[in-house]
Amino acid sequence: MDVTQLPSVLAPLHFLVGTWVGEGRGEYPTVDDFRYAEETTFAYPDKPVLAYSQRTWLIPDGRAAHAELGYVRPLEEGVELLLVQPSGVAEVSVGTVAGTRLELATVAVARTPTAKSVTEVRRVYERSGDTLWYQLDMAAVDQPLGFHCEAELRRA
Amino acid sequence: MDVTQLPSVLAPLHFLVGTWVGEGRGEYPTVDDFRYAEETTFAYPDKPVLAYSQRTWLIPDGRAAHAELGYVRPLEEGVELLLVQPSGVAEVSVGTVAGTRLELATVAVARTPTAKSVTEVRRVYERSGDTLWYQLDMAAVDQPLGFHCEAELRRA
Repeated sequence: MDVTQLPSVLAPLHFLVGTWVGEGRGEYPTVDDFRYAEETTFAYPDKPVLAYSQRTWLIPDGRAAHAELGYVRPLEEGVELLLVQPSGVAEVSVGTVAGTRLELATVAVARTPTAKSVTEVRRVYERSGDTLWYQLDMAAVDQPLGFHCEAELRRA
Repeated sequence: MDVTQLPSVLAPLHFLVGTWVGEGRGEYPTVDDFRYAEETTFAYPDKPVLAYSQRTWLIPDGRAAHAELGYVRPLEEGVELLLVQPSGVAEVSVGTVAGTRLELATVAVARTPTAKSVTEVRRVYERSGDTLWYQLDMAAVDQPLGFHCEAELRRA
């Protein structure tokens, strides 16, 4: 899209807007290391937010892996992120934007009665040229906050 | 889509699958009564869940009003629903399916620091023939649980 059409409140987030594809890697004390393909979109849905959608597929077998849906809410200072996962986890985070870097930390994690026990998530997104990189750290299933995954994406 | 392609765990929810459009009406003690147009989709995203997306536009002026994104998770008995709203609210609900009627009540509502103070939501969706009707009751902004909106939708 033409980012000049974004409401001014979304201007600090224009570096995220678009559809991104690429590959990532993940690890956690409780699972085997893994690699994945990803498609992520930050779209402007005619509200003063970005609608966020992520899907991933395991490499090499192509099986659907993770997915997330949510919204990024710009504030006068900083941002808020809300997202949900098919695994039964809802993350509510606050964060800051510095140039083309967005850092977020959960302030609440709500879970369905049958969901995995995620308790804290931290995310960093950074745009460099045509590349969008992110890293996600997580505390879950009785493990302390630690690295879970990162990916490097390019425009689809 | 061909609902015969749904995983068996999603079979009890096949009555929701598709894109639905129609009109609704809303009221709440703290706002003027309103009417809205709606487009809602329950899609099968290659995971054992339905991906849910709702958007509404005020009638008559067409201004973008509400939006929600989330997942419906089928369980052996009943369902779980997770969704987020651009207003900064995340709902986590559990519910039951009886025939083509789905009833849900929040077990957790998480909010960003700047969000409206929603504390409880109840939803009923019911399919009758080619019509999908729903009603949403809400406790928010210090009001007790009460009717907020309902809509009657048909296949897009």
